[in-house]
Amino acid sequence: MERRLIVQKYGGTSVGNVDKIINVAKRIVSYKKKGYEIVVVVSALGDTTDELLSLASGITRTPSERELDMLISTGEQVSVALLAMAVHKLGVEAISFTGAQVGIVTDSSHTRARIIGVNARKIREQLKRGKVVIVAGFQGANVDQEITTLGRGGSDLTAVALAKVLNARMCEIYTDVDGIYTADPRIVKNARKLDRISYEEMLELASLGAQVLQTRSVEVASKFNIPLHVRSSFSNKVGTLITKEVKAMEDVLVSGVTLNKEEAKVTVCDVPDRPGAAARIFGEIAKQNINIDMIIQNVSRTGSTDVSFTVMASDLDKTLKLMKKVVKAIGAKGVTFDKGIAKVSVVGIGMRSHSGVAAKMFKVLAERKINIEMISTSEIKISCVVRKGKGEEAVKVLHKTFGFGR
Amino acid sequence: MERRLIVQKYGGTSVGNVDKIINVAKRIVSYKKKGYEIVVVVSALGDTTDELLSLASGITRTPSERELDMLISTGEQVSVALLAMAVHKLGVEAISFTGAQVGIVTDSSHTRARIIGVNARKIREQLKRGKVVIVAGFQGANVDQEITTLGRGGSDLTAVALAKVLNARMCEIYTDVDGIYTADPRIVKNARKLDRISYEEMLELASLGAQVLQTRSVEVASKFNIPLHVRSSFSNKVGTLITKEVKAMEDVLVSGVTLNKEEAKVTVCDVPDRPGAAARIFGEIAKQNINIDMIIQNVSRTGSTDVSFTVMASDLDKTLKLMKKVVKAIGAKGVTFDKGIAKVSVVGIGMRSHSGVAAKMFKVLAERKINIEMISTSEIKISCVVRKGKGEEAVKVLHKTFGFGR
Repeated sequence: MERRLIVQKYGGTSVGNVDKIINVAKRIVSYKKKGYEIVVVVSALGDTTDELLSLASGITRTPSERELDMLISTGEQVSVALLAMAVHKLGVEAISFTGAQVGIVTDSSHTRARIIGVNARKIREQLKRGKVVIVAGFQGANVDQEITTLGRGGSDLTAVALAKVLNARMCEIYTDVDGIYTADPRIVKNARKLDRISYEEMLELASLGAQVLQTRSVEVASKFNIPLHVRSSFSNKVGTLITKEVKAMEDVLVSGVTLNKEEAKVTVCDVPDRPGAAARIFGEIAKQNINIDMIIQNVSRTGSTDVSFTVMASDLDKTLKLMKKVVKAIGAKGVTFDKGIAKVSVVGIGMRSHSGVAAKMFKVLAERKINIEMISTSEIKISCVVRKGKGEEAVKVLHKTFGFGR
Repeated sequence: MERRLIVQKYGGTSVGNVDKIINVAKRIVSYKKKGYEIVVVVSALGDTTDELLSLASGITRTPSERELDMLISTGEQVSVALLAMAVHKLGVEAISFTGAQVGIVTDSSHTRARIIGVNARKIREQLKRGKVVIVAGFQGANVDQEITTLGRGGSDLTAVALAKVLNARMCEIYTDVDGIYTADPRIVKNARKLDRISYEEMLELASLGAQVLQTRSVEVASKFNIPLHVRSSFSNKVGTLITKEVKAMEDVLVSGVTLNKEEAKVTVCDVPDRPGAAARIFGEIAKQNINIDMIIQNVSRTGSTDVSFTVMASDLDKTLKLMKKVVKAIGAKGVTFDKGIAKVSVVGIGMRSHSGVAAKMFKVLAERKINIEMISTSEIKISCVVRKGKGEEAVKVLHKTFGFGR
């Protein structure tokens, strides 16, 4: 039997005002009339979340994370109620739910909670009654019914989790761009839209700053093999389909070049070459739920070595505070940081079977006199840290080098 | 043992912006530091509810009431989160809850739900931990966790219900006026603040348009003998204490004069003088949860009679629609309405033991050539419907007649 259920996720820009909400409702109704069952996940309207955060910051610079979740979770609740009204207006039955109501159960890490289960009973009931079910993205509740939020891009995660639990045929991610590009079109003019990309490539692209899809949501989609379709809510054009790897993909060497200027480099100096020192450093960071990106540690020659890593610039203060304690504890010399960096990466399934991509990348950057400060590689990705001011030039030249020009 | 628990309710004007929220937090903390346990009930910030309603009306003129509740309940959730942050900032522990979270269980009448129970376990737990508990007013959830709202003035009701369940020593209602007055100070310049008033008098005053306190909340306070203190959130002045009747109150003939210009009169013409006709009329209205105020039916002389009643002007369209059906069903002639009315009332426990208040009232109005169109009386209240344009004059002359002049 063909699965008739589609999960659609609409981001904040897609529901930025009343007219846009009505447009989204029209799209939903058109799918419903084609015979699909529709579950919709919605983010907060436009800048609502920022406005709420600014109210909070008028009161205190260090709001409780629990109360922040109480506050900002209202944004999506407003969206779902308005969207349900708009669908009603078009003559189709719909019902809205908050994350807590609909059974999105999370752990208790406020402002960055993880989904630990989805109880889809209510959704199934309402689908059976022929209704469009509209769910507040980005939020859930822990087992004590405390409201939690899932952190940045959390609405994508809500959508993918629901698609999994409901065994959806497709999870559509509606946004303000019409797909995934080989590079940021604002930097590289002739960047090309990808018709199809693998989960793995998307993961590398997402974590590297493509900013269209949240990493965790791609991980979950990949784990359960849920096809994602990233597309624009302002047109009917086909976007980019993200699925498991297919044979044809290997023919393309590199699928995208990305730039991330939002990271900062932290170096812990003269870490004694003893077992457990690195574990201590990164253990403390993990406890605080700070995401580390690149980690570099060279071989020790003198009984001690520098350990460098990158974090989101917004986590830098927190990280440095932690490191000051760790430095003492492990007997290192000190900690330095550098906010003036950019990370440039090339990503592609095709790299697996082609050697020489890294060499080509380093050579091209050297020719342009762009100094490489850190390198990190995976099977399908090579990242280089360069000076922030050189980031865009690096992306442009790599995009050209790997043959994306239209 | 002396009860140390106080419930404080802050209306929307008391938390209209960040500065006001901080002021409210200061008051809460000052009480807390005197050794009281504090449960706070908060309304939505300033005009938030109206702003949300206007978003909804941008989408549809007939929003689903369930979705309206989803939408507007976010207003109080924002307030409680911000107020909790403000209390934290002052160094006192606090925790916020939505109505659904904290166990305010209601029936399923969306936008005008009734509280059917309060499960105060969570509040007690948090009070035991020394925290100020901040609860979103105006809202609850039915047994299926569907979010409901309690209708106009619902935050008062939340406060009184919590005061009852928690056995509070006092329920303080903070608002933008400093108590209950003998008449509206905007109309009657020398209106006097009452230090003390009985539940019954307050009930008559509230339902007649004093608009400071919601009728249902006074009923509940009366039933369980919870002292209410209506006072200003912008000063430390003592306001008006609402308690059960005390001996001294009877010495005062009339405790207040009120005016209500928000009602409309509906007349069902030539209702056949058969058992069940009135039941049919008011039964249909009750089914729609429309509140009726005055009902007048004269003795039948000709086999049929006119039945008149007043409703909130905002319910008029709905009522007329209903009446058109009812008129047919009961064989009446038709239905007319009149929006140009005002209702003037005098209220006082003292009336019980003094005859002649009604006579005095009618005489004074007649002297001023103010025509009385409807009359309705209770033990402690006399109301007259007059032309809307004469309402304020009537209030002024009655206020003077019953000797309130300072």
